[in-house]
Amino acid sequence: MEQLNIFCDLVLSSANVDLLEKGAFPHKVIFPQRRASSMLVATDSDPAIATADIVFAQPATESIASASRVRWIHLTSAGYTRYDTPAFQSLVEQRQIALTTSSAVFAESCVEQAMAFILCQVRQLPRTLGLPLELGSPQWYETSANCKLLSQQRACLIGFGGIGSLLARLIVPFGLKLTVIRRNPRGDEGFPVFAPEAYQEAFAEADHIISSLPDNDSTKSYINAARIAAMKPGVTFYNVGRGATVDQAALLAALRNGQIGAAWLDVTTPEPLPVDHPLRALHHCHITPHLAGGHQYEPERLIRHFLTNLRYFLDGKPMLNRVM
Amino acid sequence: MEQLNIFCDLVLSSANVDLLEKGAFPHKVIFPQRRASSMLVATDSDPAIATADIVFAQPATESIASASRVRWIHLTSAGYTRYDTPAFQSLVEQRQIALTTSSAVFAESCVEQAMAFILCQVRQLPRTLGLPLELGSPQWYETSANCKLLSQQRACLIGFGGIGSLLARLIVPFGLKLTVIRRNPRGDEGFPVFAPEAYQEAFAEADHIISSLPDNDSTKSYINAARIAAMKPGVTFYNVGRGATVDQAALLAALRNGQIGAAWLDVTTPEPLPVDHPLRALHHCHITPHLAGGHQYEPERLIRHFLTNLRYFLDGKPMLNRVM
Repeated sequence: MEQLNIFCDLVLSSANVDLLEKGAFPHKVIFPQRRASSMLVATDSDPAIATADIVFAQPATESIASASRVRWIHLTSAGYTRYDTPAFQSLVEQRQIALTTSSAVFAESCVEQAMAFILCQVRQLPRTLGLPLELGSPQWYETSANCKLLSQQRACLIGFGGIGSLLARLIVPFGLKLTVIRRNPRGDEGFPVFAPEAYQEAFAEADHIISSLPDNDSTKSYINAARIAAMKPGVTFYNVGRGATVDQAALLAALRNGQIGAAWLDVTTPEPLPVDHPLRALHHCHITPHLAGGHQYEPERLIRHFLTNLRYFLDGKPMLNRVM
Repeated sequence: MEQLNIFCDLVLSSANVDLLEKGAFPHKVIFPQRRASSMLVATDSDPAIATADIVFAQPATESIASASRVRWIHLTSAGYTRYDTPAFQSLVEQRQIALTTSSAVFAESCVEQAMAFILCQVRQLPRTLGLPLELGSPQWYETSANCKLLSQQRACLIGFGGIGSLLARLIVPFGLKLTVIRRNPRGDEGFPVFAPEAYQEAFAEADHIISSLPDNDSTKSYINAARIAAMKPGVTFYNVGRGATVDQAALLAALRNGQIGAAWLDVTTPEPLPVDHPLRALHHCHITPHLAGGHQYEPERLIRHFLTNLRYFLDGKPMLNRVM
């Protein structure tokens, strides 16, 4: 069997280096001198990539142009915005390079983050944690009556990929009624499904609108003033997708005038949001620093997901999370 | 048909008074002059109770002794600690009074509160909300790696009534592995189930221990120093049951020495916990003021639950949430 070179720029523990090298054997893993500081930040090209047949990293797009041996790129992120350009698409088509992502690795924790946000909202936790209310006092009754039951609520999921579909599966047993917006409605989703243009029907009755949209040309500022105006007044908006899918000025205005009753954002523009950004001053805007995908088992799961795809690649089978 | 008098001391909106009166017709609802200020606080006797056949309230136990017509008491709370005494038990046995609770009304929101607590813990929300971490910074990676996935965690549920069983049903799809402690293990729970004495096996591997125990003679200080010592070091402890089931000094000591890594408490002793109580000073002890059972639809659901039981009572059928 031909020995392939696998370029990987992840920062790994020795146990995980071992897992990757043994799993890829007899193929060879090449680590660059300089490792990626973040999977979400663009890095400079690394000369080691020139000898690679397979890239398990988030390479600079220019480095692929000059890396003539590359046949498959497995990104270490869920998103692939940097690669989603006509120039790069024609490059990979012309050279028949496959592009896969690590989407499956991050979906589970993104869903748990979204569920944490939704449950914090219905249970009013930001307000009630540490609050020494007297039982039976008017404030206690009032606070209690502000808590909703999911079985009495409606939600709209924007995006129905790995995150949206898993979220739907886990939240429906709570009794929440769902609508779904996805690019290509199939009809077998099990809920009323709408195309992105039909947002008015999808949003109409939703108490919670949860976006897991990726960032690409068709999703940029999808949540804009017109779409916010179509939401039910007082709606709670959640974003565990990408910051660029939201017109942040429109969101800020809607939080200020009450059209949006509360927001829970794991992603913003820019990241991190400056400490003096007006969104941070709102008590009903809750922000985490792009952590929804992160978890303790991330490096190991990235490797296992890659190794599964490596087997499929070598056997000529359809790979997981293939986007090009 | 004999017209029965139903004594009810809930504070209700006119729409809910209507719902109750129409649902109970041709029987008559009697409201006292002075309404209960809280369902969780003992009230004085009310003279109107003397004419009641049915009590839909949380009556003082003495008022039942002198209310000779009462045949059924439907409590407006989930707990019935005040009634769970030998003297009251022999009174209701002797006079053949049925005692039912509103347990079903509060289980759903208690479960959502418990789920909110668990997901906040695994997603580290108290630490990460509002934190402006730079993507790819060492602190960002460290914070991310502190987040757990439920599919990699184990939990032990103490108590398997309305709350425990619903929590199990909703959390198992996340992949969490469960053990259960309940007074009378049946074997059909679908998880390894242990009697209260066998806590060592039940606790052994649990990363999360969630109690929904009611307050009675057998549960007082169930969570004590010896049982805490049997927990996995660093465990997260949750209480959505009753404060009296925890030896609070032992909990405080365990949070201080790290045996318990974090606590999420909806119930404490006393309530509310004084603002200068040492538990409040711990960053890893998260307290809400006995709100887990509360929700917007509570008065209406209390009435609907009572009306269902009224039908069963009149038809001589087994009533829901009957405890005596």
